[in-house]
Amino acid sequence: VKENADLSSIQRLIGRFGFPQSGADTRFYHNHVLSYDQARRTPRWVAEHLSAQRLLGEVDRKHCRFKSDPDVPDRFSAQNEDYFRSGWSRGHMAPAGDNKSSIEAMAETFYLSNIVPQNYENNAGFWNRLEMYCRELTERFSDVWVVSGPLMMPAPTDDGRKIVSYQVIGKHDVAVPTHLYKLILVQKDPGSLALGAFIIPNAPLGFDHTLAEFQVTISELERLTGLHFFPELDRPEQIPSLCEHDSCDLMDFRRFTLYISGRKIKSAMNLQKLEKILKELEEKGITPDEYLREAYQRKRREILEREEQQMKNDGAER
Amino acid sequence: VKENADLSSIQRLIGRFGFPQSGADTRFYHNHVLSYDQARRTPRWVAEHLSAQRLLGEVDRKHCRFKSDPDVPDRFSAQNEDYFRSGWSRGHMAPAGDNKSSIEAMAETFYLSNIVPQNYENNAGFWNRLEMYCRELTERFSDVWVVSGPLMMPAPTDDGRKIVSYQVIGKHDVAVPTHLYKLILVQKDPGSLALGAFIIPNAPLGFDHTLAEFQVTISELERLTGLHFFPELDRPEQIPSLCEHDSCDLMDFRRFTLYISGRKIKSAMNLQKLEKILKELEEKGITPDEYLREAYQRKRREILEREEQQMKNDGAER
Ligand SMILES: [Mg+2]
Ligand SMILES: [Mg+2]
Repeated sequence: VKENADLSSIQRLIGRFGFPQSGADTRFYHNHVLSYDQARRTPRWVAEHLSAQRLLGEVDRKHCRFKSDPDVPDRFSAQNEDYFRSGWSRGHMAPAGDNKSSIEAMAETFYLSNIVPQNYENNAGFWNRLEMYCRELTERFSDVWVVSGPLMMPAPTDDGRKIVSYQVIGKHDVAVPTHLYKLILVQKDPGSLALGAFIIPNAPLGFDHTLAEFQVTISELERLTGLHFFPELDRPEQIPSLCEHDSCDLMDFRRFTLYISGRKIKSAMNLQKLEKILKELEEKGITPDEYLREAYQRKRREILEREEQQMKNDGAER
Repeated sequence: VKENADLSSIQRLIGRFGFPQSGADTRFYHNHVLSYDQARRTPRWVAEHLSAQRLLGEVDRKHCRFKSDPDVPDRFSAQNEDYFRSGWSRGHMAPAGDNKSSIEAMAETFYLSNIVPQNYENNAGFWNRLEMYCRELTERFSDVWVVSGPLMMPAPTDDGRKIVSYQVIGKHDVAVPTHLYKLILVQKDPGSLALGAFIIPNAPLGFDHTLAEFQVTISELERLTGLHFFPELDRPEQIPSLCEHDSCDLMDFRRFTLYISGRKIKSAMNLQKLEKILKELEEKGITPDEYLREAYQRKRREILEREEQQMKNDGAER
């Protein structure tokens, strides 16, 4: 940053009423850091650090609400209304699930400065599994750095040109990215690093896709995003590939379905909903594991006890 | 800008290898200031200050060559090759014509950091006339601030969605803007200001268009660009409109054609070319004015003398 005193008199005159501000400055939150794109009303990049220790916690996302970032000026901010009935979900870049240790930190991930319009299936599926993989990496690496963000990719046309094309939604023209990127840097011991850069289409992706097929070099990601990542990292192109160093295996269909069913069981409100979850599992040909059976039994007792209590209350009132 | 010491230990840990750099910093040149867009390989905005005094000078653009900005890293830089045979011209944002007082200043306007892919006819025509109007304003106002840049505008689709769509050209995917903007702030006496914001389609525009029809409010321009202009200017939305305060009349067909013919005459290399210029004027139904007739006579003598001299030289050699 140039100091005013270093400027020539002409440069100072050009800046008489200040230079245009793009708002691309680095913004700091409890557990994530980001740069905001005032033109697209989404983040440009969101950076996190994960460790096994800091992933612990029981904060539940049901206490959080999506809202505009109070630090983003109104005319550059997305609003919840922009997303409603748009056909696009509000996709976290720093995931809520990385912030179970702090209600403040989790609440900040629900600011729309951390959100991009994301395909529902991708958000709940492939991208969700990628986020889980990042958390799983903390079991094998002491430090995990993750940078996530939206990306607009050019596509070739029939006449040999290249076109970037993307939808904008709502009154505030929030830009729907064609792709999302995630850059993962892991460290076991100081100096022992591995790096993976991934570009994921903002579209439904099933279990027939591997994470490795979306890997690109960090230079390619930099070229496409226009961002210089980890500027203080020495020769990033020579760091071993994450997918060679680690598995890059996302959770498979059976385990993922069991995991999702477990979460559904936890939030089931009545016996009918509870039975439906098991029925759906059966239809998918998946036998509940012990963890799920226990969760089911626990929830069943809880619902029955609550219903019994309610009947008693109703009787007392009558 | 937050100092490192103000960060929490988590925030410092997230930034262990530095935060991503978007390169949006303000860059200073002799006579213009800009912010560069590393993803689109064009400027984001280019700011100038014009005054009658500083517009004087005889520096000729024929001594300048388009080249990559030495301060932009290679992988984020446009190259001349990206523009060749792309169908798009290299359009100055800070015009060469505003820098006739300094060869260094003019040379810097030919850096590709100051250039966007621009429609040829627009570049030579409407936009050129808009630039002339900015220079003309210095005859009536002591200070003229101009900010220029590219813009991507959403367009409605048949099914009611809004789509941003733009071409990228060359190996480095230089983004072709759908529109260009110019923001003009003039001052006669301190405190007496007028402001005009204009959004011009990056397409051929003839003399049937007025400048005023492209005027928008500064708020609308800020919403579309994501930029906060003149941040130290008090209540910009209350500043009188340039087109009410001044004419916003661009040079008309006759004067513009005479002006262009004058420039063509200056660079004509032989009598054949010189006669062709006058022939074309006649076909357009325009009678040369005194200035042009004098320029023509001067050039004609110059060419004849040079040819005579050459014949003498040829004779001496033989
Ligand atoms: Mg998500
Ligand atoms: Mg031009």
